[in-house]
Amino acid sequence: MEKFEVSILGCGCALPTIRHFGASQVVNIHEKLLMVDCAEATQLQLRRNHLKFNALGHIFITHLHGDHFFGVIGMISTMALLGRTNTLYVWGPEGIEQALQPQIDIFCQGLTYKVEIHELNANRHEKIFEDRSLEVYTIPLRHRIPCCGYLFKEKPRLPHILRDMIDAYQIPISQINNIKSGMDYTCPDGTVIPHTRLTTPADPPRSFAYCSDTIYKPDITQYLQDVDLLYHEATFTDDEEKEANRFYHSTASQAAAIARDCHARQLCIGHFSSRYNDESLFLQQAQAIFPNTVLAQENLTIQL
Amino acid sequence: MEKFEVSILGCGCALPTIRHFGASQVVNIHEKLLMVDCAEATQLQLRRNHLKFNALGHIFITHLHGDHFFGVIGMISTMALLGRTNTLYVWGPEGIEQALQPQIDIFCQGLTYKVEIHELNANRHEKIFEDRSLEVYTIPLRHRIPCCGYLFKEKPRLPHILRDMIDAYQIPISQINNIKSGMDYTCPDGTVIPHTRLTTPADPPRSFAYCSDTIYKPDITQYLQDVDLLYHEATFTDDEEKEANRFYHSTASQAAAIARDCHARQLCIGHFSSRYNDESLFLQQAQAIFPNTVLAQENLTIQL
Repeated sequence: MEKFEVSILGCGCALPTIRHFGASQVVNIHEKLLMVDCAEATQLQLRRNHLKFNALGHIFITHLHGDHFFGVIGMISTMALLGRTNTLYVWGPEGIEQALQPQIDIFCQGLTYKVEIHELNANRHEKIFEDRSLEVYTIPLRHRIPCCGYLFKEKPRLPHILRDMIDAYQIPISQINNIKSGMDYTCPDGTVIPHTRLTTPADPPRSFAYCSDTIYKPDITQYLQDVDLLYHEATFTDDEEKEANRFYHSTASQAAAIARDCHARQLCIGHFSSRYNDESLFLQQAQAIFPNTVLAQENLTIQL
Repeated sequence: MEKFEVSILGCGCALPTIRHFGASQVVNIHEKLLMVDCAEATQLQLRRNHLKFNALGHIFITHLHGDHFFGVIGMISTMALLGRTNTLYVWGPEGIEQALQPQIDIFCQGLTYKVEIHELNANRHEKIFEDRSLEVYTIPLRHRIPCCGYLFKEKPRLPHILRDMIDAYQIPISQINNIKSGMDYTCPDGTVIPHTRLTTPADPPRSFAYCSDTIYKPDITQYLQDVDLLYHEATFTDDEEKEANRFYHSTASQAAAIARDCHARQLCIGHFSSRYNDESLFLQQAQAIFPNTVLAQENLTIQL
């Protein structure tokens, strides 16, 4: 099956700790890499995860807090040193251009490639990008400043060809794509073989949603129905719900409630506050509501 | 003896590697911390070295290349989260204000403390700061953009008091500082005890110079005479001297020649290009010219 996996480069919160890097993940869809959030030191983590800088086409920023953004300029700078030529797309809420473009102008003179910055309306759920295999949507979140999550949806794929049947009917290779696309095959003697006899149904398209940072916001479940993997922030354990509300963050149980209510297949929680020295309580609290939960951790890759 | 030590947080070059962090060092003089250069991820390294963010009073930036500067905004941001109140002084060549202030304005609204940015003339050797125990001077270097090194000089210290003599003459505690400062002591019976009989000479003041990034520039030795510890960049091994010249960097032997010619007590070399997988050749080449050389490495602390 074609690759769809999520690598966690960092799952810490604003304050640096010895245990966690700042927020960043890389989504690999069919060998195309997309980054979500880019804290300071993300480029070091990219190296450690043996991910190729220049296979990365897009950086999606959720909001303009440093622990989700300060790594972008270093990434852009390093990509230039590595001789990048293909355009890099950087997406984020309003203000991202003003935050980034002057830094590029000062530190990346004579850039070898183009950086296209796209400002988004963080209050809307809308499709912001698509290509042959993928669609990306915004998810309106609620934090202290404008903030949106992202939903990555694989496009419907083609059915699997049945090799044995192709061989049996001696169907030429040139017809394979037509059959996959739903055309029946007509043999030289005029017999028509329905395409459904030559294929098995496509794998269902997969999806990944990234929701961080946000206060508990149950209405986002409408955008997340049946998502295969939900990454949802859980900055605090349940006993700190007041603190969570105050800083527009979520608790472990709230993250799990979102996963349950949108019928996610799997939940991954992260963005742990630096006050915690281990995260077992987060896991326990989330699993009580949504059993198929894992804790985010650096260098963890989840296959979809 | 009062503390004077240098901790290396990162000694890599522009491209991130798994082996090295970007350039940054912390100088501890009498428990005051001063930072020189501040690459991305410096704040993580500060944590790992158990150095206190808010004991740091100054950040000295040599030049406005990202691998010496991109960590500053994260440091400022984290210091605010930690509730800093005392002023932070950031020093660097012309342009540093324009590079930093807009970032502070966007990401650090309602900062709990003051950030004072001082632009320096990187072509001059001059005293830019002093306090009770320390003087800081610029060292004009030559790189692709304006760049200066820094010389940290301890001020002359007071002589050591001889406890036995104080006891023998029953000299009151209130007189100790006067005696240290050079006053003789007059006993109740009128006998005068010269201060030199009551003290041993002060330890000689110590100094540390940081020279990175620069092409081989022999004239800087006039500012570095008898320095206790010289940190000098050695981006390339000797066989890459052409490459070093082309990018305005130095080789291992060139760094060692500077140390030899300024009669440094010890040399530390760093800023190794990412093309090298180990640095033993650097050490060999430098030690052939200046035996008391060490290789920089992350988390190394050198006592002066």
